[in-house]
Amino acid sequence: MSKKLTKRAEDYSKWYNEIIVKADLAENSAVRGCMVIKPYGFAIWENMQKELDRMFKETGHQNAYFPLFVPKSLFEAEEKNAEGFAKECAVVTHYRLQNDPEKEGKLRVDPEAKLEEELIVRPTSEAIIWNTYKGWIQSYRDLPLLINQWANVVRWEMRTRLFLRTAEFLWQEGHTAHATKNEAIIESKLMQDIYAKFAEKFMAMPVVKGFKSESERFAGAEETYTIEALMQDGKALQAGTSHFLGQNFAKAFDVKYTSKEGKQEYVWATSWGVSTRLIGGLIMTHSDDLGLVLPPRLAPIQVAIIPIYKGEDQLTLISEKVKIIVKSLREKNISVKFDDRDTFRPGAKFAEYELKGVPVRIAIGNRDMENNTAEVARRDTLEKQTISQDQLSEYICELLEEIQQNLFNRALSFRNDHITEVNSFKEFEEVIESKGGFVSAHWDGTIETENKIKELTKATIRCIPNKGKEELGTCIFTGEKSLRKVLFAKAY
Amino acid sequence: MSKKLTKRAEDYSKWYNEIIVKADLAENSAVRGCMVIKPYGFAIWENMQKELDRMFKETGHQNAYFPLFVPKSLFEAEEKNAEGFAKECAVVTHYRLQNDPEKEGKLRVDPEAKLEEELIVRPTSEAIIWNTYKGWIQSYRDLPLLINQWANVVRWEMRTRLFLRTAEFLWQEGHTAHATKNEAIIESKLMQDIYAKFAEKFMAMPVVKGFKSESERFAGAEETYTIEALMQDGKALQAGTSHFLGQNFAKAFDVKYTSKEGKQEYVWATSWGVSTRLIGGLIMTHSDDLGLVLPPRLAPIQVAIIPIYKGEDQLTLISEKVKIIVKSLREKNISVKFDDRDTFRPGAKFAEYELKGVPVRIAIGNRDMENNTAEVARRDTLEKQTISQDQLSEYICELLEEIQQNLFNRALSFRNDHITEVNSFKEFEEVIESKGGFVSAHWDGTIETENKIKELTKATIRCIPNKGKEELGTCIFTGEKSLRKVLFAKAY
Repeated sequence: MSKKLTKRAEDYSKWYNEIIVKADLAENSAVRGCMVIKPYGFAIWENMQKELDRMFKETGHQNAYFPLFVPKSLFEAEEKNAEGFAKECAVVTHYRLQNDPEKEGKLRVDPEAKLEEELIVRPTSEAIIWNTYKGWIQSYRDLPLLINQWANVVRWEMRTRLFLRTAEFLWQEGHTAHATKNEAIIESKLMQDIYAKFAEKFMAMPVVKGFKSESERFAGAEETYTIEALMQDGKALQAGTSHFLGQNFAKAFDVKYTSKEGKQEYVWATSWGVSTRLIGGLIMTHSDDLGLVLPPRLAPIQVAIIPIYKGEDQLTLISEKVKIIVKSLREKNISVKFDDRDTFRPGAKFAEYELKGVPVRIAIGNRDMENNTAEVARRDTLEKQTISQDQLSEYICELLEEIQQNLFNRALSFRNDHITEVNSFKEFEEVIESKGGFVSAHWDGTIETENKIKELTKATIRCIPNKGKEELGTCIFTGEKSLRKVLFAKAY
Repeated sequence: MSKKLTKRAEDYSKWYNEIIVKADLAENSAVRGCMVIKPYGFAIWENMQKELDRMFKETGHQNAYFPLFVPKSLFEAEEKNAEGFAKECAVVTHYRLQNDPEKEGKLRVDPEAKLEEELIVRPTSEAIIWNTYKGWIQSYRDLPLLINQWANVVRWEMRTRLFLRTAEFLWQEGHTAHATKNEAIIESKLMQDIYAKFAEKFMAMPVVKGFKSESERFAGAEETYTIEALMQDGKALQAGTSHFLGQNFAKAFDVKYTSKEGKQEYVWATSWGVSTRLIGGLIMTHSDDLGLVLPPRLAPIQVAIIPIYKGEDQLTLISEKVKIIVKSLREKNISVKFDDRDTFRPGAKFAEYELKGVPVRIAIGNRDMENNTAEVARRDTLEKQTISQDQLSEYICELLEEIQQNLFNRALSFRNDHITEVNSFKEFEEVIESKGGFVSAHWDGTIETENKIKELTKATIRCIPNKGKEELGTCIFTGEKSLRKVLFAKAY
C-alpha cells in the first residue's frame, strides 16, 4: 500500500478502508468478516464505552453478563425475532475435536461429540435474557428491571466492511422490563435521547431522531427509535436504535408479574444498542484527505508534543521544559504524548499525528526555547499559532473545546445543507442521484411504495423524524394522501 | 431454597453454591455450563477489571480486540497448544438456519450452509493473535509488543461450578512479543507480580508465587508462573497464570523480526490471564456462615445506611441528616447506599447487607438523632460501635482500611497455619486427608511420581515456590534425591 491516502473525491470507499489501516485502527482478520481492532482503534472504543457506561449508570441501569450461546429452542421462541436473524446465525454443533486419523498432526471435529441441541452464537440477546428474566420477575416490586450488557455478537453478513458491518462486532445491549406500556415507551425514548446526546456532545456527530417505518423495524419490535447521521459522501448511517418490544418477548417466554392489585400481567420490554459501528461513523463524519480527524472528547491522544532539535543538548533542554508542560496539561485531565523518539524525523511525526487525527500538535524547537514560545497546530483547520509557553496549558484547554465545537458545527452545517425537501419523484431521483443526503418527502405509508422506491433508487426510509410536523400532502410516488414527510436516503 | 444459608462446616460445597445465588452474584443459565453473572456479581468483576486494567496500562500494555473464532487450520498450528484444548472446543460448523419443513414454526440448521473450514470458539487466543502478529512485527523497532484483551472464552468442561469452572467465562489475556528470551521471561514474571499484588492488595487474598511442574504447565508454554491461593476448606485455587512461551508460537506462525544487526530472528512470547474465577476465590477466602464478606476495595457498595424510624416525620428528619453524611462519604470516594425503601423492615435490610457482604453498615434511629450519633457495624468482625455523626466520615474512611487489612491478615494467618512440612508419604497422606492445605514436601522431579501421588491422594503439585530455598533431601514417595521442596494440595 502506498504511503499516500486516496482522496475522498476520487474514491470514498477506498479512502475509508485506507484510513482505517493507515491510522492503525483495525484490520481484517483470518476469519471471514471478522476484524482485529488494533490498540489505537480500541482506545477510541474504550473512550466511547466510558462515557456511555456513565450515562447508562446515571439513569439507573446496571451491567450484567449473559451467555454467548442461545439454545435453538429458546432462539426460535419469539418467532419474528428468530425469523429476522435465522439467515445470519453462526451455529455450534459439536463440542470436541480429535486427531484426524487420515492426516498426521491435524484435527477434525469428533463425530461422537455432536450436541443434542444446537447452540446459536448470539446475534442479539433478547431470547436468552428474557428466558432468564422469567426467574427474576415475580412482582411489581421487581420492576423496572434496567440492565445493560457489553458484549460481542455475531451476525453472518455476506458483505462486510471494517467497523460498519462485520460478522462479529462489539456492542452494548440494554434490556429492560416494565410494569406498564407507557413506562417502556418512555424508557425507549430516553435511551434514544442518551444516544443522541452521546453522538452530538462526544462524537460531534449531529443526528436526526426519529422512528422507523414498519419494514425497517427491529425483528420483534413494535416500534424502533433511531438516530440517523449523515456521512460526508451523502449516505446515511443508522448510528443507534432503541426498541419498544411491547409484550412480545414476555409472551414468548411467559414472563408475568403480580401487580399491586394482585393481578397477573405480562411485562413490557425495551432493548437498545450501539456498537463499534459508531467508529465508522466517527471516521466518515470528520476525517479528511490527510487522514483521521478526531473530536477531542474521544481522542486517545489529545495533544502530541514534538521536539525539534539538533543534538542531545538541545533535546535535554527542550525535554525539561516539556515535562513541565506535560504536567500542567495532565493536571487539566488532558491526554498528552511527548514523542521524543530519535528513530523518526519531526516531519514524519507531524504526518503520523495528522494521519491519526490527534486534535492538537505542539512543536518546540530551539528558537521557541529562546523566545519562550511553542508552535500549536490544530488538526481540524490545520491552522498554526505561536503561543507563549506560560499560557500554553490554558490555551490548549480552550482550544480543545473550540475544536470539539467546530467539528460539530461543521458537520451540522454539512448535514443541514443536505436535507432537501422534494415534491415530485423526478426531483427525488435527481437529488438522490446527484446531491445525495437526506431527502424529505411525502410517502403514502405503504410497504409497497417504500419497496418500489428502494428498488428504483436504492434509497430507503431512514426515519420518520420526531420533530417532523403534521402536514397534509400527497405521496411523491403514488399521489396518495400523506400526513407528514419522512426522510429518505441511501444508507450504509 | 430456604432462607438460611447452609453452614460451611456442614457442607462447604453447598454453602458455596447457595451464597452465590442468595447474594445475587450469579446463576446457572439455560445453556449447559454457562452462567449468568447478575448485576451485583458483575459489579465486583467491574471493580476487579478497573484495577487490573490500570495496572496493565501503567506497565505499558494496551488493549485490543481479536476475533472470537479461530479457523481450525490456525488452531492446530501450534501442536501442543491444540492438543491441550482440542477436547473441550465448541465448534461452529454452519452459518445459517432455515425453517424446519417438518415442524411448523421451528428452525433447523440449513444443511447447505456448511462452512468450508470449521471455526473454533476461542478457548484462548494465542493462535489467532500470533497469526495476526505476523503482520505487525518486522523489525526490532516493533518490539516489545505489549497487548491485552478483555474477552469471553469457551472451554467445554464436563463438570462446571459457578465462577470456578464454567463453559464460558470472562477473562483478560495478555499476549506479548519480545526480541530476547530474557525480556520475555522478565515480562512473564512481572505479570505474575502484578497478579500477586492485585490478589493481596485488592482481594485481600494471600498467594504463593511459584512456577508449575511440567505436567501442570499451560499447553504450549515453556514455563508457567502461577499464583496459588488457599480456600477455607483447605483446597488450593490457581488464581492466575503467566506463561513464558519461548519461540513456540513464533515458529508455528513464522513470526520473525530483523534485529539491529540485520539478522532474521524468531520472536519470544508470553501470555497471561486471570478470569471471573477470581470471584470464586474471593468468596471462598473471606465469607462466613452469614453470607458474603467483601474486601472494601472491591465491594460494589462499601457502606449501607439504614434509617430506623416510625412515621414519615422521623424519616424526613433522618433523611436530611443522611444526605449530609452521604455527601461527605462520596467526597472521600466511598460508595454509599442509603436504603430508605419502605417495603422492608430494618431487620430484613440488616440481613440483606450481611448476606451481600457490604463491609460497613450504618444505622440511624430517633435516639441517634437526639444524641447526634450513629451505629456503625463492621461485616468482618460483626462488631458495633456508636460514633458521633460529626466524626462519621473520617471514622468510616479509617474503618474501611482497617477491614481491608484485617481480612488480609486473617486469611494470611489461616494460610500460614495450613502450610505443613512433611518428611514421609505417610505424614503426607495424613495431612492431605485430615488437615488439608498446602503440604511442602520433597519430590524427585518425575512426572511418574507426581501422577502416582495424585492417583493415591488427589493432591497435585500446585507450584514450586519462587521463595523456596535449595535444600537437599529425598523424595517422600520414591526416596530419590530432591533439590527442593514443592507445594502439594488438593485443588479446585
